[in-house]
Amino acid sequence: MADYCFGVDVGGTTVKCGLFRVDGSLLEKWEIPTRTADGGKDIIGDIGATLLAKMEERQLSREDFLGIGLGVPGPVDQKGIINGAVNLHWGKKDLPAELGGITGLSVWAGNDANVAALGEMWKGGGAGSRNLILATLGTGVGGGIIVEGQIVTGSRGAGGEIGHCRVNRQEKEVCNCGNQGCLEQYASATGIARLARRELAASTDGSVLREQPEDSITAKDVFDAFKAGDDLAARVVDKFALYLGNALATFATVVDPEVIVLGGGVSKAGAPLIQAVQKVFREDAFHSSKDVPIVLAQLGNDAGIYGAAKLAIDKGQS
Amino acid sequence: MADYCFGVDVGGTTVKCGLFRVDGSLLEKWEIPTRTADGGKDIIGDIGATLLAKMEERQLSREDFLGIGLGVPGPVDQKGIINGAVNLHWGKKDLPAELGGITGLSVWAGNDANVAALGEMWKGGGAGSRNLILATLGTGVGGGIIVEGQIVTGSRGAGGEIGHCRVNRQEKEVCNCGNQGCLEQYASATGIARLARRELAASTDGSVLREQPEDSITAKDVFDAFKAGDDLAARVVDKFALYLGNALATFATVVDPEVIVLGGGVSKAGAPLIQAVQKVFREDAFHSSKDVPIVLAQLGNDAGIYGAAKLAIDKGQS
Repeated sequence: MADYCFGVDVGGTTVKCGLFRVDGSLLEKWEIPTRTADGGKDIIGDIGATLLAKMEERQLSREDFLGIGLGVPGPVDQKGIINGAVNLHWGKKDLPAELGGITGLSVWAGNDANVAALGEMWKGGGAGSRNLILATLGTGVGGGIIVEGQIVTGSRGAGGEIGHCRVNRQEKEVCNCGNQGCLEQYASATGIARLARRELAASTDGSVLREQPEDSITAKDVFDAFKAGDDLAARVVDKFALYLGNALATFATVVDPEVIVLGGGVSKAGAPLIQAVQKVFREDAFHSSKDVPIVLAQLGNDAGIYGAAKLAIDKGQS
Repeated sequence: MADYCFGVDVGGTTVKCGLFRVDGSLLEKWEIPTRTADGGKDIIGDIGATLLAKMEERQLSREDFLGIGLGVPGPVDQKGIINGAVNLHWGKKDLPAELGGITGLSVWAGNDANVAALGEMWKGGGAGSRNLILATLGTGVGGGIIVEGQIVTGSRGAGGEIGHCRVNRQEKEVCNCGNQGCLEQYASATGIARLARRELAASTDGSVLREQPEDSITAKDVFDAFKAGDDLAARVVDKFALYLGNALATFATVVDPEVIVLGGGVSKAGAPLIQAVQKVFREDAFHSSKDVPIVLAQLGNDAGIYGAAKLAIDKGQS
């Protein structure tokens, strides 16, 4: 009986691995380093080796496994082919063929942010829902869209690339993607720090944020100051919330979700962040979506392995 | 053998009906008036009667039919329950139960704009695609989203309500939906006329649009003047294209479509309209989507009956 599956989340620094039962229980998780040298040529082999070692250690055979779910940081098409991953130094790769060849197991792959959205739908902040938007507010802004329980992969594997909607056509600085004025430039950790530096430069108003070197200001500093009642920090949070809340309301007109989940390092600011974003969202959303809850992600760094496991379970059992 | 189906598109003035073969050929189409008096209580009965009459006329039995697909102007959930339709004077209605009860046929219903998107994907401007955004630029702005061949219904039947994304938080006039600054206020026929009146009021620049009473200016007048080289009309078209092109680029970050289809009366302006919108879309879209074609809808008023038939075929054969 195929009672087990692996959920694997490939990041630029570490590969997170989880051994799951198909009922959804996580039996064990571990990490290996991501070796990105030489075009990341060792990464797939390393993943295959650690999974095979785990099977041997647990005395499990191929027949015990439904397969492997894999989340990777790049655009992945419906067939599991990734068309380049900058952080892994990868070009185009057929993941089911390569990792399947090494392990002898079925492999299903998805974009890491999309897979994390599936994880949050399954066991996290969106548990019980089938239509969900996840926005991951980290160094950049990633996202994943789930419609009727399925990842929206899109025609080029770019479904859910919501960090790159253009929210400000007046922006002069260039986003990592090459455009100017992407949501990521205001709603990521680096974006919030940039908004703070701009707000500091725009006035001489007092603020605790002036007590440290400008370049050292982080999104956490901004939210800490906001929670302590700092007016200038509150203006920064308002701008962040305006861009993000408005964009989420627009995304909601497209997919009409049951729930919106915010994850990533920035979301650790917690309830005050949620309240600020929800306020703008309510103002801007279409009437039938105004009460859509905006909640915090719950799985943290494990969203990827959970979602990858869920992908394997859904695909392997269909 | 169930070789036939009906595709029915319920509008506020007429009900359009099509008799299809399940291979996709339209055998006959006709219309009946929509009787909206007394809460639209006669509409479903009228539809049932005309379909039963057609079956008798053609000497076809229930066994010859896969069923009925129905597009209706309101939010329809996954079960085919409509939660109010202003134009039909309807409250909540279980369409499969009511129309199915009269006809003895299986009934699948969807929102009219969503169903039209399915039609354009099947036999219209998006033929051959499986991931599509349709924006219908009429009196209002409607829309339909198709992901992997399926309508995005959404959790409350409001999937694809893209006319009501809030694109201008500075707008003072109120949209029909109650919000201020919806895309519909700039990209619909009435919205383009409003933009023209504002542009005329903002300057004394010469324009052929000044040669008629302001209240009589239509979107067609604006595009006709634009095509004839009128500078003021060109500024109106630029504003329209800026709002619509930017919004489409944002929608594309969510669903990563293969093609974007523009329909509705405004789209009759043709190639110059497409070019204006495509230019902004290219500037604003995420890099992998910049080359997504924006094309004209091809089915005109028949998109609804085609899409409704396709809905019946997909659901009836699955």
